[in-house]
Formats: sequence, C-alpha cells, structure tokens
Amino acid sequence: MSTSTATAVSHPNIALIKYWGNRDHELRLPENGSISFNLGGLFTQTKVVFDSKFDTDSLTVNNERIQNSGLKRVSQLLNVVRELAGRQYFAQVISTSNFPIGAGVASSAAAFAALSLAASHALGLSLSEKDLSRLARRGSGSACRSIPAGYVEWLPGRSDEDSYAISIAPSTHWDLVDVIVIVEANHKAVGSTAGHALAYTSPIQKARIADAPRRLDIGRNAILQRDFEALAEIVEVDSNLMHAVMMTSNPTLMYWEPATISIMKVVPEWRLEGIPVCYTLDAGPNIHLIVRRDYVNLVKKKLDNLPGIQQILVAPVGEGTHLIPDRS
Amino acid sequence: MSTSTATAVSHPNIALIKYWGNRDHELRLPENGSISFNLGGLFTQTKVVFDSKFDTDSLTVNNERIQNSGLKRVSQLLNVVRELAGRQYFAQVISTSNFPIGAGVASSAAAFAALSLAASHALGLSLSEKDLSRLARRGSGSACRSIPAGYVEWLPGRSDEDSYAISIAPSTHWDLVDVIVIVEANHKAVGSTAGHALAYTSPIQKARIADAPRRLDIGRNAILQRDFEALAEIVEVDSNLMHAVMMTSNPTLMYWEPATISIMKVVPEWRLEGIPVCYTLDAGPNIHLIVRRDYVNLVKKKLDNLPGIQQILVAPVGEGTHLIPDRS
Repeated sequence: MSTSTATAVSHPNIALIKYWGNRDHELRLPENGSISFNLGGLFTQTKVVFDSKFDTDSLTVNNERIQNSGLKRVSQLLNVVRELAGRQYFAQVISTSNFPIGAGVASSAAAFAALSLAASHALGLSLSEKDLSRLARRGSGSACRSIPAGYVEWLPGRSDEDSYAISIAPSTHWDLVDVIVIVEANHKAVGSTAGHALAYTSPIQKARIADAPRRLDIGRNAILQRDFEALAEIVEVDSNLMHAVMMTSNPTLMYWEPATISIMKVVPEWRLEGIPVCYTLDAGPNIHLIVRRDYVNLVKKKLDNLPGIQQILVAPVGEGTHLIPDRS
Repeated sequence: MSTSTATAVSHPNIALIKYWGNRDHELRLPENGSISFNLGGLFTQTKVVFDSKFDTDSLTVNNERIQNSGLKRVSQLLNVVRELAGRQYFAQVISTSNFPIGAGVASSAAAFAALSLAASHALGLSLSEKDLSRLARRGSGSACRSIPAGYVEWLPGRSDEDSYAISIAPSTHWDLVDVIVIVEANHKAVGSTAGHALAYTSPIQKARIADAPRRLDIGRNAILQRDFEALAEIVEVDSNLMHAVMMTSNPTLMYWEPATISIMKVVPEWRLEGIPVCYTLDAGPNIHLIVRRDYVNLVKKKLDNLPGIQQILVAPVGEGTHLIPDRS
C-alpha cells in the first residue's frame, strides 16, 4: 500500500446530562456519565489519506491549514490508530463542517468522531461501535457520544477499556429537536479541554459528581418514557450545575452573555404556558432549546421577540458516525 | 407606664462572604458564618411606641400601612422583646428607609436591626451588642450583622445563645466603598426567607457549606491585612457559589438579569487593568461593586458605558445600629 483513504461523516451532539471534569486527562476518562443526542443536519465530514510519501501529518479545516496545537491533537489520535493498525504512514486530514466552530456547538466531538472512523477504516481496521467510541474519546471526550445513533449514554467506566458510549434509544424513539440559539458566534475564550482541567478547583465539583447517578437515572428514564416535564427539570438543573462549577472554578469561567440570561429566564415561563421546551448550555454562551418537534415553529416565533440573537439552527435527533463513498 | 418610645437607625449591610441556608429556620441559625460591612449613607430609621391603650401591633413602612405577613413578622420579633421585658403592651412601629426595598440591598437587615434596638430600649431593656445581634437575627438572619459597626463577622453558632455578629475591624480600618448598581428596582420574585428554605434542595449546598470555613478565613484575613486582590477573588467566588446554589435549587432561582451578566463579565477585566474592584450579589439582580475609595469615580465613569443601569448608590463602610433622640 502506498495510499489508502476513507471519508466519514459525524454529527455534533448536545448533552442533556453534562460531562465536565476528567478522572484521567490523558485518556479523557470522565468523572461522571453523560447523556446526549446527535444533532442531525449539522455535520463534520472528514477525509483521511495515508500515504507512504508523506513526511508529516497535515490538517485542513474548512479550507484552512491548521498547525500547532490543533494539528498536534489530531496527530495524537492518529498515533493511536497507527499503533492499533501497526502502520506508520503519515496522513493528510481534510475536514469541513456546516456549523459555527467553537461557540457551544460541540465541534470537536464531531471532528474527532469522524476522524476516528475515517482514519481507522483507511488503515484497514474494522472497529466495533464500542471500540470506535473508545477511540474517539481519546481525541475529545464527548466525541465518544457522536459515534452511536440517536439517544446516547456515555458509560464513564474506570479505564480506557470500559469508558464508551452506547445508544439507549434510536433517533425515531422521540421527536425532540434542538433549537440552537446563537448569541455569540466568536470562538470561546477558554476551550473545553482547558475548562475540564479546572473543574477540580471548584469547591462544588465533587458534590456535582456525587449527585450525577441520580441525574442520569432521571434523565435516562425521562427519555425512555418520553416524559418531557421530568426531562426538562433535570436538564436545566444539570446545565446550571455544570455552569455553577465553571463559575466557581479558579480562575472562574463565565460563559454566559446577557442574551443567554434573557433566554434562560423566559424558557421556564414558556413551559408554564404549556410549551414543551427546556434549555441547556455547553461550554459557551449559546443556548440549546430542547423542544418537541410540533412546537419548534412556535418557539422560533417567540424567540423573534428577544434581543441579541444572531442565528438559529434547528437540529433533530441524528444518526451515528458513518462512512461515505470517497469522491476523489 | 402607659406610653414608652424609642427611635433607632440602622444601615443595611453587604455580605462579602454570604449567608444562604439555615440549620434552624425559626431561630434563623445559619448553616455557615458570613462576613459583611454596613452601608453608610443608606439607612432605615424605626420608631417604636408601646402604649397600654393599643389593642394590636401596627406597622407603617415609608408612610404605607403594612398588614399580613410583614406585620406578622414584626409582631413575632416584638413578642420576643415583650417576653424579655416581661411587658405585654402592643406597639406602633413606624419605619422609613432612604434606599430601594427588595432589590438586593438588604432592606430587612436594616429594618430588623433598627426594630430590635428601638423596641428593646423602649421597653426598658439595655441589651449588650451581642444580645441585640441575637435578637435582630430572630427577625432576619442578616440583621444580626447590622448591629455592630464596620467590618462584621456573624459567628454561626449552634444555638440561639451563640449565633451573633461581632465587629472584626472598625469602619476606619480600610476605605472600601460599595458602589451599588441598580439594574432592576422592582421587588424581587422570591424573597430571601423563602430562598433560604430552598437551599437544601440544591445538590451542591452541602459542599458550599463544608467549604465555608476556608472562604471565611481567606476573607477575614484579606480584610485584616487590607489585601484587595485576595479579597476580590474570594468575594466573587463566594457570590457565585451562593447563586450556584440558588440556580440549582428545586425550583431553580435565577436572580440575574442581562445587565447583571454584563457587569459581572467586565469587572474582572477592570481588575486586570489595575482597578481594585470586585463584584458581589445578594438575592437579587443588582450588583455591588466593592471598590477602594480612591477608585470610585473611575469605576462610576466606566459604568457610564454599560447598558441597563437604572441607578447607582455609593456607600462607604458604616457604623452600627444606634439610638437617636426622639423627635415627637
């Protein structure tokens, strides 16, 4: 072999019960389990070409050549794949996404999920969903959740072997939609990897972790029983808990913007009016409204009256990471 | 005696290390200690008249007659005073304040501190500062901190006898000022008493309490050593911790407004520019900027550029609760 290639597509995901803080930073073993769904319609497509004539790895994201830490992180994942495959070729990685990067939509999750599948397939590996999820986790913790389809739970585990995500319900199980409200499209000041490393400095992180099994049980059962009210309450508290840890870390991390607060305050009121909607935020100022599909238009109309909104993306529950035919 | 009267003046106070949650709701014994200073220039003046011909207690606040729960809470404190004095006259209570009520300036603290001194003095009691502080605590927990002068620490204690506030430094010790930024002057949706009762429903309240001695030590030492940078960091984290508990209670309490977040985000940046300023918030959307006196004008100027500010009050470190001559 002198050249081998594969292309994979992956969706970002939105966590309903959040991941924040690692028990092992290098292996990205999380301190607590998490639950998410993949965001259909938003995708990252990644082509990996291994070639014996390359003398280094290279990375292009949205037609821009990436060096330094971004490339290093990709090379580290490629090293894991090369080790598994027993092959030492360098790779060209070409990735494109159709959604804003670095602003609370989990761009690194889709990127490392797609990279894991494309790179492993290109080198002749045929990994199980579990092993793909474990591999993606090494690149970005939450990437492990973008591997399986539909509603997903990341089993935290205690080692590289038992920390991976599984599908707990197919995408067709419940017609939830993520209405993503972009209030700030700029790259965030502190990325998730750096943020995770600060979690332990908050005096409340341990309590958040200790309480996680309770929240996971409530969240999982609410999904399985399609109980929106139960889901809404635990999703909002869990999001607030993660941001509570962030804003009490040392240094403090405050991701919210004025428009974030406006929406966070009004959403529970909409729910009292009978609209099945709740909010959740990743490590950024943008706000994800989890809504039943038949209420999406009403929610979008109500958002029209609020200030500070730059863009709205709508994503139904999506499929898992998959290969697509190579077009080169 | 058929008539006896006294008039007292008290300042509200701003907590630098916060009180949130009770170990005993009726006695208002706090779960953790707290540190504050009294707000000079803002005051509540309360006149109490006991008269054998009254057949009920009455309450007038800012020229408005108060009934129901407000009156009941005052009568409960008067009952404690009557019990101590062994006299059973009803009272007329007339109170006026020069600052907005119910919007994150601790109005009930000044009110119950002034009431405690005026009522006890009118019935012939000459209580020590400690016993006055204990008495005021029965009306509103943080009222115990408005009794002593200057920088104050509430020793949480475990019983009515040992839960009271002391002065840890006189007002002249350090020239700090509270620049109170009013972003919302309306009465808050959930009062502090109801909020305290929810604290235990947050999964992180216990961790916040367990960590309190550390924060109290840092805060107390920073005041005693006039170390602004150390004070600023612990004050902001402690405020965020209290709001973290609020926003993860069941139901969640979210006191912040968009303008609150704007200011919270910019203040740490001002500090990086060399301005000795930090923020803290009570149970409301308004933001208290703790500033060294020589920087007050600069901070006010910088606030001019921010949206959503309705009013700014400036309060230096104030004196304790004291009697004033009766003008009637």
